[in-house]
Amino acid sequence: MLKDVEITRAIVESYMKELLDSLTLDVAIVGAGPSGMVAGYYLAKGGAKVAIFEKKLSIGGGIWGGGMGFNKIVVQEEAREILDELGINYKPFREGLYVADAVEVATTLASRTVKAGVKIFNMVEVEDLVVKEGWVCGVVINWTPVKMTSLHVDPLTIEAKYVIDSTGHGAQVTQHLLKRGLIEKIPGEGAMWAEMGEKLTVENTREIYPGLYVTGMAANAVSGAPRMGPIFGGMFLSGRKAAREILKKLKE
Amino acid sequence: MLKDVEITRAIVESYMKELLDSLTLDVAIVGAGPSGMVAGYYLAKGGAKVAIFEKKLSIGGGIWGGGMGFNKIVVQEEAREILDELGINYKPFREGLYVADAVEVATTLASRTVKAGVKIFNMVEVEDLVVKEGWVCGVVINWTPVKMTSLHVDPLTIEAKYVIDSTGHGAQVTQHLLKRGLIEKIPGEGAMWAEMGEKLTVENTREIYPGLYVTGMAANAVSGAPRMGPIFGGMFLSGRKAAREILKKLKE
Amino acid sequence: MLKDVEITRAIVESYMKELLDSLTLDVAIVGAGPSGMVAGYYLAKGGAKVAIFEKKLSIGGGIWGGGMGFNKIVVQEEAREILDELGINYKPFREGLYVADAVEVATTLASRTVKAGVKIFNMVEVEDLVVKEGWVCGVVINWTPVKMTSLHVDPLTIEAKYVIDSTGHGAQVTQHLLKRGLIEKIPGEGAMWAEMGEKLTVENTREIYPGLYVTGMAANAVSGAPRMGPIFGGMFLSGRKAAREILKKLKE
Amino acid sequence: MLKDVEITRAIVESYMKELLDSLTLDVAIVGAGPSGMVAGYYLAKGGAKVAIFEKKLSIGGGIWGGGMGFNKIVVQEEAREILDELGINYKPFREGLYVADAVEVATTLASRTVKAGVKIFNMVEVEDLVVKEGWVCGVVINWTPVKMTSLHVDPLTIEAKYVIDSTGHGAQVTQHLLKRGLIEKIPGEGAMWAEMGEKLTVENTREIYPGLYVTGMAANAVSGAPRMGPIFGGMFLSGRKAAREILKKLKE
Amino acid sequence: MLKDVEITRAIVESYMKELLDSLTLDVAIVGAGPSGMVAGYYLAKGGAKVAIFEKKLSIGGGIWGGGMGFNKIVVQEEAREILDELGINYKPFREGLYVADAVEVATTLASRTVKAGVKIFNMVEVEDLVVKEGWVCGVVINWTPVKMTSLHVDPLTIEAKYVIDSTGHGAQVTQHLLKRGLIEKIPGEGAMWAEMGEKLTVENTREIYPGLYVTGMAANAVSGAPRMGPIFGGMFLSGRKAAREILKKLKE
Amino acid sequence: MLKDVEITRAIVESYMKELLDSLTLDVAIVGAGPSGMVAGYYLAKGGAKVAIFEKKLSIGGGIWGGGMGFNKIVVQEEAREILDELGINYKPFREGLYVADAVEVATTLASRTVKAGVKIFNMVEVEDLVVKEGWVCGVVINWTPVKMTSLHVDPLTIEAKYVIDSTGHGAQVTQHLLKRGLIEKIPGEGAMWAEMGEKLTVENTREIYPGLYVTGMAANAVSGAPRMGPIFGGMFLSGRKAAREILKKLKE
Amino acid sequence: MLKDVEITRAIVESYMKELLDSLTLDVAIVGAGPSGMVAGYYLAKGGAKVAIFEKKLSIGGGIWGGGMGFNKIVVQEEAREILDELGINYKPFREGLYVADAVEVATTLASRTVKAGVKIFNMVEVEDLVVKEGWVCGVVINWTPVKMTSLHVDPLTIEAKYVIDSTGHGAQVTQHLLKRGLIEKIPGEGAMWAEMGEKLTVENTREIYPGLYVTGMAANAVSGAPRMGPIFGGMFLSGRKAAREILKKLKE
Amino acid sequence: MLKDVEITRAIVESYMKELLDSLTLDVAIVGAGPSGMVAGYYLAKGGAKVAIFEKKLSIGGGIWGGGMGFNKIVVQEEAREILDELGINYKPFREGLYVADAVEVATTLASRTVKAGVKIFNMVEVEDLVVKEGWVCGVVINWTPVKMTSLHVDPLTIEAKYVIDSTGHGAQVTQHLLKRGLIEKIPGEGAMWAEMGEKLTVENTREIYPGLYVTGMAANAVSGAPRMGPIFGGMFLSGRKAAREILKKLKE
Repeated sequence: MLKDVEITRAIVESYMKELLDSLTLDVAIVGAGPSGMVAGYYLAKGGAKVAIFEKKLSIGGGIWGGGMGFNKIVVQEEAREILDELGINYKPFREGLYVADAVEVATTLASRTVKAGVKIFNMVEVEDLVVKEGWVCGVVINWTPVKMTSLHVDPLTIEAKYVIDSTGHGAQVTQHLLKRGLIEKIPGEGAMWAEMGEKLTVENTREIYPGLYVTGMAANAVSGAPRMGPIFGGMFLSGRKAAREILKKLKE
Repeated sequence: MLKDVEITRAIVESYMKELLDSLTLDVAIVGAGPSGMVAGYYLAKGGAKVAIFEKKLSIGGGIWGGGMGFNKIVVQEEAREILDELGINYKPFREGLYVADAVEVATTLASRTVKAGVKIFNMVEVEDLVVKEGWVCGVVINWTPVKMTSLHVDPLTIEAKYVIDSTGHGAQVTQHLLKRGLIEKIPGEGAMWAEMGEKLTVENTREIYPGLYVTGMAANAVSGAPRMGPIFGGMFLSGRKAAREILKKLKE
Repeated sequence: MLKDVEITRAIVESYMKELLDSLTLDVAIVGAGPSGMVAGYYLAKGGAKVAIFEKKLSIGGGIWGGGMGFNKIVVQEEAREILDELGINYKPFREGLYVADAVEVATTLASRTVKAGVKIFNMVEVEDLVVKEGWVCGVVINWTPVKMTSLHVDPLTIEAKYVIDSTGHGAQVTQHLLKRGLIEKIPGEGAMWAEMGEKLTVENTREIYPGLYVTGMAANAVSGAPRMGPIFGGMFLSGRKAAREILKKLKE
Repeated sequence: MLKDVEITRAIVESYMKELLDSLTLDVAIVGAGPSGMVAGYYLAKGGAKVAIFEKKLSIGGGIWGGGMGFNKIVVQEEAREILDELGINYKPFREGLYVADAVEVATTLASRTVKAGVKIFNMVEVEDLVVKEGWVCGVVINWTPVKMTSLHVDPLTIEAKYVIDSTGHGAQVTQHLLKRGLIEKIPGEGAMWAEMGEKLTVENTREIYPGLYVTGMAANAVSGAPRMGPIFGGMFLSGRKAAREILKKLKE
Repeated sequence: MLKDVEITRAIVESYMKELLDSLTLDVAIVGAGPSGMVAGYYLAKGGAKVAIFEKKLSIGGGIWGGGMGFNKIVVQEEAREILDELGINYKPFREGLYVADAVEVATTLASRTVKAGVKIFNMVEVEDLVVKEGWVCGVVINWTPVKMTSLHVDPLTIEAKYVIDSTGHGAQVTQHLLKRGLIEKIPGEGAMWAEMGEKLTVENTREIYPGLYVTGMAANAVSGAPRMGPIFGGMFLSGRKAAREILKKLKE
Repeated sequence: MLKDVEITRAIVESYMKELLDSLTLDVAIVGAGPSGMVAGYYLAKGGAKVAIFEKKLSIGGGIWGGGMGFNKIVVQEEAREILDELGINYKPFREGLYVADAVEVATTLASRTVKAGVKIFNMVEVEDLVVKEGWVCGVVINWTPVKMTSLHVDPLTIEAKYVIDSTGHGAQVTQHLLKRGLIEKIPGEGAMWAEMGEKLTVENTREIYPGLYVTGMAANAVSGAPRMGPIFGGMFLSGRKAAREILKKLKE
Repeated sequence: MLKDVEITRAIVESYMKELLDSLTLDVAIVGAGPSGMVAGYYLAKGGAKVAIFEKKLSIGGGIWGGGMGFNKIVVQEEAREILDELGINYKPFREGLYVADAVEVATTLASRTVKAGVKIFNMVEVEDLVVKEGWVCGVVINWTPVKMTSLHVDPLTIEAKYVIDSTGHGAQVTQHLLKRGLIEKIPGEGAMWAEMGEKLTVENTREIYPGLYVTGMAANAVSGAPRMGPIFGGMFLSGRKAAREILKKLKE
Repeated sequence: MLKDVEITRAIVESYMKELLDSLTLDVAIVGAGPSGMVAGYYLAKGGAKVAIFEKKLSIGGGIWGGGMGFNKIVVQEEAREILDELGINYKPFREGLYVADAVEVATTLASRTVKAGVKIFNMVEVEDLVVKEGWVCGVVINWTPVKMTSLHVDPLTIEAKYVIDSTGHGAQVTQHLLKRGLIEKIPGEGAMWAEMGEKLTVENTREIYPGLYVTGMAANAVSGAPRMGPIFGGMFLSGRKAAREILKKLKE
C-alpha cells in the first residue's frame, strides 16, 4: 500500500541529498537559458561538477516564444553542429539559415543537459555573490517566491570555483559587482543588429572579473554590443566557448 | 550577409504555415501538463493529427516544482514502462516506488512529444469551446497576454474531432460547458489521498460530453475524486488511456 | 576559519532532520495563535509528538496589536493560572480583570511552547487535509510564498493522528471539509459580545469531524458563537481543553 | 454554410499577407496620433510604402478627450486647409480659431489615412530600433500585451528607409537612442505656452538622427519647446512637413 | 495673438452647449461598438435626436483587434450593403464572405456616425438607469475615470424616450434591471457557433423591457444565443433593425 | 413635479458659469491645505478674484489626522488671533500653547474661506504651469481621476496674475519649474524641529519665481527648512503673509 | 521655548480624554455624510451625548463632488429651512429648487455639527456591531488604515444606547446584521428616480432592528427604494427625523 | 459581569500611560531585530529608560526564516555566552559553531527584553528624526498602516538622548540624515563573506552622528562591510557593544 507520507519522504530525502552534494561546485551557472544550458552541457560532458540556478519554475529563458509568440527560432550555419550534437531537428529556410521549433529547442536542450549530469535548481534565485579578496567564489541563493513576496528571509550560500552569468541582457549577476563598485560600468545591450550581435556575443564571452564568466546576451550587455532577436546560434557558441575555457582552467 | 528582416520572414512564414495546417485537427489537447503531453505522444504515434494549446509560455504544468519546490517526483510501478518508453531516468526509493528529477521529466516528455509530431502552441489560451448541436467540435483560442490584460480582442477558432481537457484540477475547458448549462456540476478534486487518487484518475478518464475527454486531475475534478500530490504515474496512464480510446474511435 | 558553506550545511542538515522526524505526528496544529500554542504546550508537556504549522513568518496571530494597535491585552480571572504557568506578567485593572503587554504575551507563550518540545514550522501553509474513509489523518503543506505567488507547485503531506484547527475566525482548515461536502455549514463568528464569547469558545472546543479538533475563534466560528475582541482567557482555556481531551484519547 | 474555421482562415491569411508585405517599408511611423497619421496620409498620397505601428488597440492618441474630457478640440487658421483636405467639420469660435468634435477628428483622420493606403498595425509596440553604422534602418516590434505582462518573448524586426517618432511628448522611440548614448539629451516638453508651442512644433520637425524624424510633441520634447494643450493645428502641420521632406529624399 | 485661455473657453463653451442640448434625447445608446454605432447612424439619418455614451476614450468596441490581434474582420453577404452604405472597403475571401481592415471599419463607421448627427460622449460611463413606473426613461452617467478610481461622486441624469443596450456580451445596461429584480435572468452568451450566432443576433434584437432595446452581442447574451467571433455582419444588421423599429415607434 | 434632468441642468449650468468666470483670475492657489485656505480667505477679503484648485475631493490637507490619527492639533500664541478671526474654538494646554479639534479646524476654515468669496475647485489637479518669458501666468488643470488612471486626456488652462504653491512639503507646483530648469534646486523639508520650523515657514513665504509664491510647508521645502508636525500656527501666518504681499502688488 | 514633545503630549492627552469620555454614548452615528451629520447636529442640540465614526480622513460623504465633479448640489423647498438653520448659502434655480456650493455645504455642515457638541472620530472604521439578546448596544471600531492593509489587529468597543447607520447606499452597518442572519434581506437601492427617492428616504428612516436606525440612502437601500443623485434635501430631512425620534426615546 | 467597554477602557488607559511615560527616553531603538533587542536588553539591565519602535506587528526581523525558510540559525563561539544569558537552547554543529531554532531565538530574546523593562511599540514606524543644531535628539513616529496606505496624517515626536538605528541593511534611520545632507554617503552592505562580516559588524558599531548609533547590519551597511547570511553572533555582540557604550555616556 502507498502511504502519502512515503511520497514526502522519497522527495525530501532525494532532494536534500542532491542539495548537500551541490554545496561545493566546480561551476555555478546562473540562468537556464540557451547559453547557460549549453555551457552546463559541455562542462558536465568535460567532467566538471556543475549546477544551474534558475529563478523561474521552468527553464529555457527567451527561447519559448520565438518571435512575437510565433514559436519558431532561427540558427545560422556556424551553430548547426550544436543542434546536431543535441539532437534538435531543424529545416533550412535559405542557405545557411535554419528554422527550428522553439518548444523542441528549449526542452531537448534542457533534457540533454540534465542527462549529461547537470543539476538544475529551478525556482531558486541568485540574490548575491560571495566575493573574497577580489575573487568571486560562490553564489547566494533563495527561493524565488520568497524574493517575489519580499519576505524577510535570509539566503544560503553555495561555493563554486567559477560562476557563469547567463541571465540574459539584464546581466543580473554582474549587477551585484557593479552595485559594490567592483566593476565600473555595465553599458547594456545595444540597439538591434542581428548579424553584428551574433558575432560579438561569442567574442564578448569572457571572464570579466576573477571567477566570473559572462555568456550570451549577458556578455553583450556587459560590453555594450547589439541585441539580435530570435536567432540563437551565437548563444549556443557562447555557452560552448565558456565551457571550454573553464574546463581548461579547472584542469590547470 | 544576414539581414534582420530575414529572421522575421523565416519565423512568420514557418509559423503561419503550421498554424494554417492546424486549423482542422483530429485532436485538440488543452494543457501541456503530464497527462496532456502523454496523450499527445501516443496519439501522434498512432497517426492522429494533434496539437496542444498551452496558456503558459512553458510546458510541464505541475511537474517542475516536485513537492514544495524540492524538484523530485515519484512514480509507481504501474507507470514505469512509460518512463522507459520516453527515456526518462529514475531511481528506486523502495520496492515499486521510483524517484525521478522533475526537470528531466518535464523536458524529456515534452521533447519526445514534439518529436513524435505534436505541434505545441504555447502562450495560447483556450477561452471557449465550439459546440454545435450537442457536440464539442473545436476550441476558441487567443493569446494568453491578451487575456491577462483584459484587452477587448476577439478570439479565433480551431476545428477538432475530439478535444481533451488536460488542464488539471481546475478543469478549465469543462467549466465552459458548466457555465452554459451543458453539464450539471463539476464537484472539484477531493481531499488528499494519494493511493486512491492514483487509481481513480485512470478510471475517471473518459468522454464526459460528446467530443470532450478529460484526463489527469481534470478527470478527478470532474468526478470529485481525491488529489494526490507529486506522484505522476496516474497522470501518465490517464493520458495513454485517453489516446488509445480516441485512436480507436478515429479509426471507426 | 568559518566557511560560508558550513553555515548552509549546518542549517540544511538540522532542519531536514527535524522535517523528516515530523512526517508522522501525534498532533498537527494549524496556526500558531494563542489557542494553538497553548494546546501545543500542554500536548508536549503531556508527552505527545506535536508540530505547529504557521503560514506567517512570525507566530502570535492576533495577540500583537492588542486593541487598535494599543498593544495591551486583557485576561479574566479564570485564565490567570495559565499566565502564571507560562511566566507572563500582568497587572490587575479591576477585580478579576488583568492587563498584560501584548508583545510579552506573544513571545513568552511561543518561547515556552518551543522549549516544551513543540516544533513550529513557520512560513508553511496548510493548503488541504488528508482524509481517508471519513477520518482526517494528516495535513497537506506548502511554502506560504509559493501560495502567495500562485506558483504551480505541488504540496507535501504530513501524517497525524489528530489535527487541530486553531486558525482563528476563518476556520481555514475546517473550510476544506466544507468545500468537499464533508460537513454541512460553517456559520462564522457572531457579532461582538465579549462575555458570551469567552464562555462559549471553551464549550465549542471539540472534535467536529473524526480526527479534527477546533479551538479558539475557529471553535466559535464553526458554532456561530460571538466574537470577543482583545480578551484572551477563553483562547487559552480552549487550547488547554483540546490538549487534555486529545492526550486522553492518545493514551486509550 | 459558414464554418467557424473559415473565419479564422480568412483573417490569418489576409493579415499574414499584409504583414509579410510590410517587412520592408519606405517609412515606419511609430504612434497613430495626429501628427503620425497626417504624416502617413501625405506619405501614402505621395506614393511611399508606409505603415504605422500603434501600441494601443485604438488610434488617435490625445485627440479623443479634447480638454479635460470635454471632447472638443481647437485648430488655428494655418491648419484649416488640412481639415478641409480630410473632410473634417469645424465651427469658427472667433476669427482664425475653429472648434471641431474630437471623435470626428480622430476617426475621420484615421479612416482617411487607411483609405490612402497606410497599413496601421495596432496593439503593436515598437520596443527598440535597428541601428547599423550610425543609421536608423528599422523598428523592433512586439505585441503590446506581451510587453504589458513582461513576458519573456523576443520581438521581430521591420526594415524601413525612414522611421518617424510621433509618439508624443514621451518621444519613446528617440529614447532608445538616448539610452544607447547615440544622442546626448532629450530635454522634454516645456511648460504650457500654446502660441509658442504651436509655432515651434513645426520648426522642430526634423531628422534628429540619420533615418529618424520627429513630429508633433515628440519634436517639441526633443527640443525642449513648450506644450500647448488641446489645440492640434501644429500637430497636423508637423506631420505634413515631415511627409514632404521624406518624400523628397525618397525620390532623390 | 492666441491666448491659452481662449482654447479653454472655446472648448468649455462648445461642449457645455452640446451637453445641455443632449439632456433630453429621443434615443440614448450605450456603447459605441459596431451595433450601437450602426443603430445611431440609422436613427440620426431617420431624424431622431440621439447620443451615444461610451465608457472608453475610444470607440469601436471589439472591432479593433480583428481575431487575436490579426486586425482583419469578416462580413457575410447579407451585411455587405451596409459596408457599401458606409463607404467601407472589403475584399472577397470566397463567395459570400468578405474581409475588411479592422481599423478602417472602426474609424469609418464612427466618422460616418458622427457626421450623420450623432453626438458621442466618450469617457462617460452609464452607471445606472432611470426607471419610473415600469418604464426605462433615461440613463445615469458619470466620468469613467471617476468610476475606475471608485471616488465617491454622484452621477447626473439624461432623459431619453428609448435606451439601447449595445454594450456587448456583458449586457451591462440590462444588468441594472436584473439587479433590481425588474427582469428575471440574463443567461449570457452561448458557446461559439458563428453561423447560428450571426442569425440569432438579429432575431434577438428587441425591446426587452419597456423603453430598453438590446442589440448585437447584448441581444444574444440576454437570450442565451451563441457567440460568433470576429464576424460582424450580424452586429450591423442588428443595429439597423433596432433603429428601424424605434424610428417607427417615435413616429407613432 | 421634480424631473431628474432638472437637477442635471441646475448643476451643469451653475458650475459652468463659475468655471467660465474663473478662467481669468487674480490669484490661483494650488492646494486647499491650511496655508492655501488662509491665503485665499485674506485675498478674497481684500477684494481679489481668487480660486483654489485641490486635487482631492475634500479640502484640509494634513489637518484632519492631527498627530497619528489622534485628531487634535496645536497652535501657538502668535496665530491665536487667526483662530479668533475664523471662529475656531481652542483650549489652552499650557501658556501660549492651544489645542483645537482637527475636524473643526479643517471644516470651519474651509467654510469661512468659501463664504469669503473663494471658489474651490476640488478633484482638480494642477498638472503644469503656464510660463511665458520668465513669468508664471497661469495653471494647467485636469480632473484628478484622469491623472490617477493615466488616461491620455489633454488639460485646460487658467490664467492668473499670481499663483500660490500651497501643496505642502512636496512643493508640487514648484517642481514643474525645477523639471524645466527654471529654478535650480528644491532641497526639500529638513528633519523635524518644530520651533525652528514654525518660525522659518513664515520667513520662507515669498515669491520664488516671478508670479509664483510659496506658502506653508512648500515654503520650507523650497528653502530646506525643518518640518514641524501637527502644529499649524506657522501655516496660518504664512498664508496671511502671502495674501498681504500679493494684495499690495495687485494694487500697484 | 516650544519642545517638540509638548506637541505630542498636548495631542495625546486631549485625544485620549475625549476617547475615554466617548466609550459610553447615547448615540453612535456611523458615517459623517449628510444625513449622519444632520442627525448628529440635532441630537447634540437636543442634549444627547453623541459621536460620529467616519472611516475616511475627511467628512462629507458624497457631497463634495456635486454631480460628475461639477461641484454644485441641489436642494428642494422642503429642506430649505435646514440650510437656513445651518447658515448655508444657496441660489434659486427655479421655484422650489435651490443650488448650493458642494464645498460650502460639506464644510459648513460639519463645522456646525462639531460646534454643536458632536465628537467626530475620523479615520475610524466600524467593523462590527455589539449585539446582545436581540439588541444593538454598541459599535466595534478600528483604525481604517489597519483595515485597508488587512493587518491582524483586534478592534475596540464603544457602548451606545442607539446606533445610526448613515453609511449611504451600502448600508454597511446593517450588513453586519444580515451576515449574522439577524435580518433577512437588504434589497439595495432601486434605479434612479429623484422625486420618489427624495420622498421615500424620509419615510424609510426608522429603527430597523432594536437599537439600530437607518438614515439617508442607507434607509432607501434597506427598503429597496430609488436612488436620487446629487439632490440632498431628503438626506437632511431624514437625519433630522432620526434625531427627533431618538431624542424622544432617550427621554422616555 | 464583564462589559465589552471595560476591555476597551483597560487597554486604552494602560497603553496611554505607557505612551505618555515614553515621550522622553534615554534611548530610542529603531527596529526590533536581533541587534536592537540585545541592545535594549542590556540597556534596560543597566538602568536606562528605553523603548523599541518596530514597524511590523511582530518582532524578530530576519531571525524567523533561518536560511531559505529552513528555520535554524547559526551562532559562533564568541556569542555563545549571550545565548546562555538569555536562556536560549543550542546544539553544537562542529567545534565553535552552534545551531539554534529560529523561532525559539526570536521569541525568547523578545520575551527577555520586555521582561527586562524595555517597552516595545510595534506597528509604529519611525518616519524621520528630530535633529537640532547637529544633534539627533528624538524620533518621529507614525502608525505603520498609515504609512503603508500613504494617508496624509502628521506624525508625533519622541525625545531621546540617544537613538539606535538597528533597522538592518537598509539603515532606514540613517537614510534620513543622508537625505538632508547631514552625512555624505551610505555605501550599503558588501557582497557575502560571513567570517569578515561577523567580525566587522562589531567593529562598525559606533556613533556615526552625534546622538545616533548604528548596530548589526545597519552598522555594516553604513560602512560598506560584507553581509553574512543566517549567522547571528555578530548581531548579538554588536547590540551589547552599543548598549555598553551608551550606558557609559549616560552615566557621564
